[in-house]
Amino acid sequence: MPGKRVRPTVFFLAARSAGNGNSPLVTAGLAIEIIHTATLIHDDIIDGHTIRRGMPTIFSTWGNNVATIMGDFLYSKAFAILGEEGLFEIMRLLSKVTHLMSVGEMLQYQQRMNINVSEDGYLDIINKKTASLFSAACECGACLAENGNGHRRIYSGFGENIGLAFQITDDLFDFLAIEEVIGKPTASDFCDGKVTLPFITAFRNAPEEAKRRVKDLFSNGFETNENWDEVVHFVQNYGGIEYSLEKVKGFGERAKGCLKDVDPSPERDALHLAVDYIVDRVAPFSQ
Amino acid sequence: MPGKRVRPTVFFLAARSAGNGNSPLVTAGLAIEIIHTATLIHDDIIDGHTIRRGMPTIFSTWGNNVATIMGDFLYSKAFAILGEEGLFEIMRLLSKVTHLMSVGEMLQYQQRMNINVSEDGYLDIINKKTASLFSAACECGACLAENGNGHRRIYSGFGENIGLAFQITDDLFDFLAIEEVIGKPTASDFCDGKVTLPFITAFRNAPEEAKRRVKDLFSNGFETNENWDEVVHFVQNYGGIEYSLEKVKGFGERAKGCLKDVDPSPERDALHLAVDYIVDRVAPFSQ
Repeated sequence: MPGKRVRPTVFFLAARSAGNGNSPLVTAGLAIEIIHTATLIHDDIIDGHTIRRGMPTIFSTWGNNVATIMGDFLYSKAFAILGEEGLFEIMRLLSKVTHLMSVGEMLQYQQRMNINVSEDGYLDIINKKTASLFSAACECGACLAENGNGHRRIYSGFGENIGLAFQITDDLFDFLAIEEVIGKPTASDFCDGKVTLPFITAFRNAPEEAKRRVKDLFSNGFETNENWDEVVHFVQNYGGIEYSLEKVKGFGERAKGCLKDVDPSPERDALHLAVDYIVDRVAPFSQ
Repeated sequence: MPGKRVRPTVFFLAARSAGNGNSPLVTAGLAIEIIHTATLIHDDIIDGHTIRRGMPTIFSTWGNNVATIMGDFLYSKAFAILGEEGLFEIMRLLSKVTHLMSVGEMLQYQQRMNINVSEDGYLDIINKKTASLFSAACECGACLAENGNGHRRIYSGFGENIGLAFQITDDLFDFLAIEEVIGKPTASDFCDGKVTLPFITAFRNAPEEAKRRVKDLFSNGFETNENWDEVVHFVQNYGGIEYSLEKVKGFGERAKGCLKDVDPSPERDALHLAVDYIVDRVAPFSQ
């Protein structure tokens, strides 16, 4: 299963929608996807995940050492190609955001095994870890446009909102979809001791007794599918799915709202469609 | 045991010797040392080393996951602070070299357990892995100098040569020094299946029988100090030490030669002293 390449897609659309058709776009779009790939390779070391996009991870095939080097190789390649083309403002934006992503990764690691993560704490982590690169991708697009500088904040805002929507749908999949659809095992975040919005919401709503039971499963781990089903039912019973879906829709609308003053163009329409794609990809599984 | 901070030292001296006294120097010198530190943290994951500078490594104290994130945090921080100060040419140089270092790391990993690495193969690896950052550090120094652009190749050549001298002395220490002096266990490279110049030389010179014996130790590993002593004696008996010391001196002289047309200044003198420091630090142990 190949990557969805959603970050470079929104980057290109943002660039074109802001009026750009130049060749540095390819380099910048490439750098963005390379950085994303590097983070995945290192993430898989951190989480010890063996499957990604339906395939064995670098870490599980070649070991920690190769995966560490490979991630560094890709990170540095992204910046090297930007430097070669003299795309310094893109370099500046992407170095800032790469750093922010590592801070998000660290915060997430710090919050592992903490069942009491708040919604704000969760949003802060996914903002740094995921939405920041979407935001930078869109801002880079506007930044490379001939007259795009005035639009930079519009597009960074758009990117941040679709990034948040994207990550929440990703987290929703854990409680909705089957492994084949998303290319990685469900339940993995929970097994890793990470709580996400659907669970956080249900845990906030649930009565004490039900909370005690999932707390026990969370702290002591679980082995069987039966236990995971119990957690899924807990999240479904106490409103975790509906609330998260509402949040996804809300961020999607905010994203579209960011573009309201942008001149109409086929690319602006496509950015709207990108929002719909992100919001709707979770819909078939949420019935 | 703190780091020796030799890279930022030669960077500052190169900058001042080329005529620079400005404040971006601090940012650039900081970025160079941060990048070096990030590579050490990731190197320790790759090599599984538990001791560095006489202290437990991040990897051994906090695990792979924290060490992976911490390395990424530092790499990206280095580029983020350069971007903040608009030091784009430094960013360009350092992104290129960070990439080269990851290639060197990969080559070294690929050559693990290969006892037949050639001298050229070894020099290629240490050039990419170590000398490239020394070279870039010195070139950055010249690049930030008011009239330094004409000098860039002089300083990058100087840096490359002291980097090669530095790495060979580092590799020599494995066969000469005691653990307390260098802050990490001796024999570790050989135990990791990595051969370095002193061994490569002795292995080239030794008769078949002696070769067969160390080949056996190399391939099957060894547990006791006695075995390591045998390898050390092998390297000493077949000229590995003398040859490597000659190489160190040669690179040191080449480094000084690079500076021959540079206007005399206290900083140029100090760069000469830096060469002497690198060449001489191995001397007390080589008697």
